[in-house]
Amino acid sequence: MSLDAIAETLSKACRLEHDQPLVVGLSGGPDSLCLLDLLHGLGYRLHVVHVNHLLRPEADKDAQLVREMVEQRGLLFYTSEVDVHKHAETFHLTVEAAARELRYHCLFEQAQQLSAQAVVVGHTADDQVETVLMHLLRGSSLSGLRGMPFRALPNAWSAEIPLVRPLLATWRTEIDRYCLDHDLHPLTDTTNQDTTYTRNRLRHELIPLLDGYQPGLRKRILRMAGLLREDDDLLENLVSQAWQSCVVEQGDGYLALRLERFRAQPMAIQRRLVRRAAENLIVGVPDITYDDIQRAVMFAHQPSSTGQSDWMAGLRLAVESGDLWVAAWEADLPPPTWPQVQAGSLLPLEVPGITPLAAGWVIQAERVTLDGESLLAALSNPDPYQVWLAEECLPEPLVVRCQQPGDEFQPLGMQGQSVRLREWMSKLKLPSRVRASWPVVCAGEAIMWVPGCQPAHLARIKPDTRQSLHLTLKKIDSA
Amino acid sequence: MSLDAIAETLSKACRLEHDQPLVVGLSGGPDSLCLLDLLHGLGYRLHVVHVNHLLRPEADKDAQLVREMVEQRGLLFYTSEVDVHKHAETFHLTVEAAARELRYHCLFEQAQQLSAQAVVVGHTADDQVETVLMHLLRGSSLSGLRGMPFRALPNAWSAEIPLVRPLLATWRTEIDRYCLDHDLHPLTDTTNQDTTYTRNRLRHELIPLLDGYQPGLRKRILRMAGLLREDDDLLENLVSQAWQSCVVEQGDGYLALRLERFRAQPMAIQRRLVRRAAENLIVGVPDITYDDIQRAVMFAHQPSSTGQSDWMAGLRLAVESGDLWVAAWEADLPPPTWPQVQAGSLLPLEVPGITPLAAGWVIQAERVTLDGESLLAALSNPDPYQVWLAEECLPEPLVVRCQQPGDEFQPLGMQGQSVRLREWMSKLKLPSRVRASWPVVCAGEAIMWVPGCQPAHLARIKPDTRQSLHLTLKKIDSA
Repeated sequence: MSLDAIAETLSKACRLEHDQPLVVGLSGGPDSLCLLDLLHGLGYRLHVVHVNHLLRPEADKDAQLVREMVEQRGLLFYTSEVDVHKHAETFHLTVEAAARELRYHCLFEQAQQLSAQAVVVGHTADDQVETVLMHLLRGSSLSGLRGMPFRALPNAWSAEIPLVRPLLATWRTEIDRYCLDHDLHPLTDTTNQDTTYTRNRLRHELIPLLDGYQPGLRKRILRMAGLLREDDDLLENLVSQAWQSCVVEQGDGYLALRLERFRAQPMAIQRRLVRRAAENLIVGVPDITYDDIQRAVMFAHQPSSTGQSDWMAGLRLAVESGDLWVAAWEADLPPPTWPQVQAGSLLPLEVPGITPLAAGWVIQAERVTLDGESLLAALSNPDPYQVWLAEECLPEPLVVRCQQPGDEFQPLGMQGQSVRLREWMSKLKLPSRVRASWPVVCAGEAIMWVPGCQPAHLARIKPDTRQSLHLTLKKIDSA
Repeated sequence: MSLDAIAETLSKACRLEHDQPLVVGLSGGPDSLCLLDLLHGLGYRLHVVHVNHLLRPEADKDAQLVREMVEQRGLLFYTSEVDVHKHAETFHLTVEAAARELRYHCLFEQAQQLSAQAVVVGHTADDQVETVLMHLLRGSSLSGLRGMPFRALPNAWSAEIPLVRPLLATWRTEIDRYCLDHDLHPLTDTTNQDTTYTRNRLRHELIPLLDGYQPGLRKRILRMAGLLREDDDLLENLVSQAWQSCVVEQGDGYLALRLERFRAQPMAIQRRLVRRAAENLIVGVPDITYDDIQRAVMFAHQPSSTGQSDWMAGLRLAVESGDLWVAAWEADLPPPTWPQVQAGSLLPLEVPGITPLAAGWVIQAERVTLDGESLLAALSNPDPYQVWLAEECLPEPLVVRCQQPGDEFQPLGMQGQSVRLREWMSKLKLPSRVRASWPVVCAGEAIMWVPGCQPAHLARIKPDTRQSLHLTLKKIDSA
């Protein structure tokens, strides 16, 4: 083990500062004791935390020995006792998982109180290899195969305080050597509390066996993880760019991705965007499976919107107005922004004048005498949010309302044939949430204009139409 | 196994056309027989090749049975006998590797003669999982962990004819089922010729064992490879873009990457660029190790050029004029393009006139009377490839030569202090190959101008200088 290399890792990969407090977890085993000795030797400002899991008869004796290790060095020592069995029972966890959760909770709580720059733990290169192999056996994606980072922020316990692992490139054999050389006397039995049963089997059975297939396996896996980390970092940068471009709304418990832009991304990026959406909305580190990701991507690729769908961990998916919404079921989505009328209202149209609808939308109406250029404009109108209607064909009263069951409509271009309005709108791919409150303009009983779609055949402008009603649907921002 | 899915794989992932001939390798085992039956049923134009390795006593009998399978279906049959032991001995290969090499050689030779659209082989999802695990045990990068592609072009045997593997998503159990259902009778003993010893151990020992750790391992590894393939494809697209921007010279056995642009790439891309450079220069599929890549990247990052360095597989690395050259040792690099003079020559400077140097470079000389604007231009000259010298300070003769051992120079801006020319040039980061033939202009014994650098203190233009010699170094393209 090179002290220079460790010092460089601490300042570069871990980005630790000498003048800021640092919380170190110390079990008393070789890894954490070696880490403590290194950090102390290099002059970092240490606060040492020992979590007593009270799981074994010698736990108290060990805690005392750990205290001596710390006080020998004149460092500040904090110890916490935790009830692992109770925690395991309450949250249906294995004893190992419960111990781990409580341990990190204590470390980060202390770090928070001390405004520490980081929590430092003693994971080694061997731990890294085990982690990568565990992810492999689970068939993980690149984000698992890359292994643990030297510096994790955000992490499962904090969004502000990084979890730092300076020994990730240091082998256990090097640590044992260091302890011998520096006359350190680690405890021997508490070191494996971090390891679950699977990890222990992996460490003691599988890795030695795999090493028999290809000697030097550990080193190669560690190197591989390093390469994959570079690849993954690069991809994550691309995802950040894509995220910037795709996310069009973000609020408490929800976010929306512009579908067109999302679908234009390579599949590898689409999967990561969906994952990032979940990570943004779920507190802690969610357990997102391949199937979860796959389901969301499939949902985003269905040709037409079909309302919303349950996704995972209390989240739902919805496609609306060209956006993919990812939201907690209980989240209030932002007020809708499409043209709309309050349900049940029947608004007399002001002519000439401005009729307020809802959510800031208005219809502006004016009488226009068509002639030459203005006739041409009316006949060749490309804007679906304005219309010219032949005034002589409009019976009174002129009103704005939203669609009603049984509404029929004779759209321009179908020789006066009737269609069911509901079916017509669904062909136009307006999402259901939007369709229900979409404004329609009626004259007498007949629908004369569906904004965004056509005017009615009856009220169409003909080359000899002179008196017209010009309607414009628009949003008043301050409304 | 879904026939529709296979048909889609054949046309989409494998991009096979129904109207172009196709070479199918048929060992007679379940995988290749199932593949043959599927392709035949779907109406592809098949030419079936069986390679007889003559390794086992029943080889001839098997070849006869395979012939019957093919002729039953009314297909064209080709058989080749190969001498595996001789090939293994000649090229120091294992018997398995030699058999594999000869087999693919036969398949592609036949495909070449028939102008076939592809060579199709029967690798399965199980083969894929084994391949990925073998790469993992070797600590491969993403390009290994992604596994085999459905369609490989270029491949180790051809740059024009793709190697296609339509059954990569089909499990062996599905194939066995298919053979049963379709009353196919594959040979049982020749199927494992493709497998090296490592692969056999992996298949029969390791995978069942790993499956015991995490049941369903095979499926998860296959799915993982699919995800990694998407990631790798995306990264390879980025590499192609970077390649376009970085490669500034490419010829027979060499290529050059503009260093500044290369170094500006993320490390993951730099590694891949270096790999792609090797793949471009080495015939076949080179065995490029992590260390090879690492060495080349380190070479490209050394702060100053140190000539050239041996790399791998007959290639060398060199940094020159801001470019990283990757070249076969025996390749003739393109003629150098920097300003230069033939070694040992002493060229009288034509004044006024044009003096040809070497490699198309000339110095153009003219007498200029300085006054007002022209004096200002001379005093504030920003172009290192032209100079104005005070004519009254230039003793005869005026000559151009390259540097000589012991040359000294009094550059402008150092109050007439002398520097060793060699050291001065090396400070200017001119590479050694360039320095040796770089032109200098002398008057009498003294160096008056080092093009690209300064004029001499002695011959500098002062505000009262009137008679000047204006020199311009330039390249005549047609020279």
